[in-house]
Amino acid sequence: MTILLYDLVGHDAARPFSPHCWKAAMALAHKGLDISTVPTRFLEVPTIEGGASKTVPVIRDGETVVADSFAIAVYLDEAYPERPTLFGGDGGKAMARFIERWSQLTIHPYVTTAALMDLYGMQDEANSVYFRQSREARLGKRLEDVTAARDAGLGGFRTSLEPLRSTLAYQPFIGGPSPLFADYIVFGALQWARIASPYRLLDDGDVVAQWFERCLDLNGGLGRKVSAAA
Amino acid sequence: MTILLYDLVGHDAARPFSPHCWKAAMALAHKGLDISTVPTRFLEVPTIEGGASKTVPVIRDGETVVADSFAIAVYLDEAYPERPTLFGGDGGKAMARFIERWSQLTIHPYVTTAALMDLYGMQDEANSVYFRQSREARLGKRLEDVTAARDAGLGGFRTSLEPLRSTLAYQPFIGGPSPLFADYIVFGALQWARIASPYRLLDDGDVVAQWFERCLDLNGGLGRKVSAAA
Repeated sequence: MTILLYDLVGHDAARPFSPHCWKAAMALAHKGLDISTVPTRFLEVPTIEGGASKTVPVIRDGETVVADSFAIAVYLDEAYPERPTLFGGDGGKAMARFIERWSQLTIHPYVTTAALMDLYGMQDEANSVYFRQSREARLGKRLEDVTAARDAGLGGFRTSLEPLRSTLAYQPFIGGPSPLFADYIVFGALQWARIASPYRLLDDGDVVAQWFERCLDLNGGLGRKVSAAA
Repeated sequence: MTILLYDLVGHDAARPFSPHCWKAAMALAHKGLDISTVPTRFLEVPTIEGGASKTVPVIRDGETVVADSFAIAVYLDEAYPERPTLFGGDGGKAMARFIERWSQLTIHPYVTTAALMDLYGMQDEANSVYFRQSREARLGKRLEDVTAARDAGLGGFRTSLEPLRSTLAYQPFIGGPSPLFADYIVFGALQWARIASPYRLLDDGDVVAQWFERCLDLNGGLGRKVSAAA
């Protein structure tokens, strides 16, 4: 049975950009499950599945609706235990939460800084009004002023990735010899930047950039099916 | 059979202080293994087990000698699979490495700053000469100048713990409902500070401090058997 994935898009329905939706899309592909995506814009999110969630991703699998990327990964591992694991055991499930929190607190703020104007430019007219109002209220400044800080923040951002960089000296993936959901968590954050903005977050020689390229190759090259922003 | 743990001490053999030795001691206790500790000073480390390692911890389990806290944990889980797991599966083993790198890059530099003069004061005469020379060469400044920066760095240090703090909003331990080696990794860093220095790294109301207190209770209160520095 095909699983529905409500996937966040802007004016171009073929360029899903949400980091959290990418986590879910990679998790579904990792499990080898057939999916059908429902391109969804910000203002449509509250109408999904009768208002099941204020955020995407949301999936429908038969009669089951699940919101939140981490909850979706947990659901998929429980519902499809015979397919490749997303966590590699209970310890991996617990520690993936730490990696989620690290990614959210370390990578997301800088991607917001670097790509905010580009993300704004991806929205259609009605959604761009919503995007500017909601983000400016949350961040307490104009979108233009947020992105103006990106050059000054780039060095610090790259340094902040050192725990990941150091881990990749021991093993090819956060999950070990092969990827797990923890990889998709961090991948989602950098894929969000890749699709939204031509701004270069990583140096090509960085092992983090090399790991990201390996992630783009995973699951039949799913991540490359949407081109980098030009 | 009793496992030997070569454990780093200063002039007081009853106050082991090394973060890495504490990781190993907690891992051994978690597995319920009988141990005998060999108090070892910095200058004695190269003589352990015929020069097996440049660093402690080192363990001897029968004919097997293992150095490095992470390698010791991996060894113990493989040698004693019927005893409580330290990793909770292969995913947890891989992600514990990320947590080790995060702890080493986030917590260790600040504990060094905060506790360096106290650590110096714990050494006997010969080892205090070694400690000053080796640390000043590594850090490129006088011990006194390193520790002078601790007040200025405290706020930033506390903020840098946010990924751990946020994880603890989801679960009582990094390992999930119960502790795993990942908890002992971070515990070791904070226990190093606790034993060496009266300087207060954490506010009592901080959930990280509360998690650390839970860790002190683990394994029969092993961590409390050495009192906090006064």
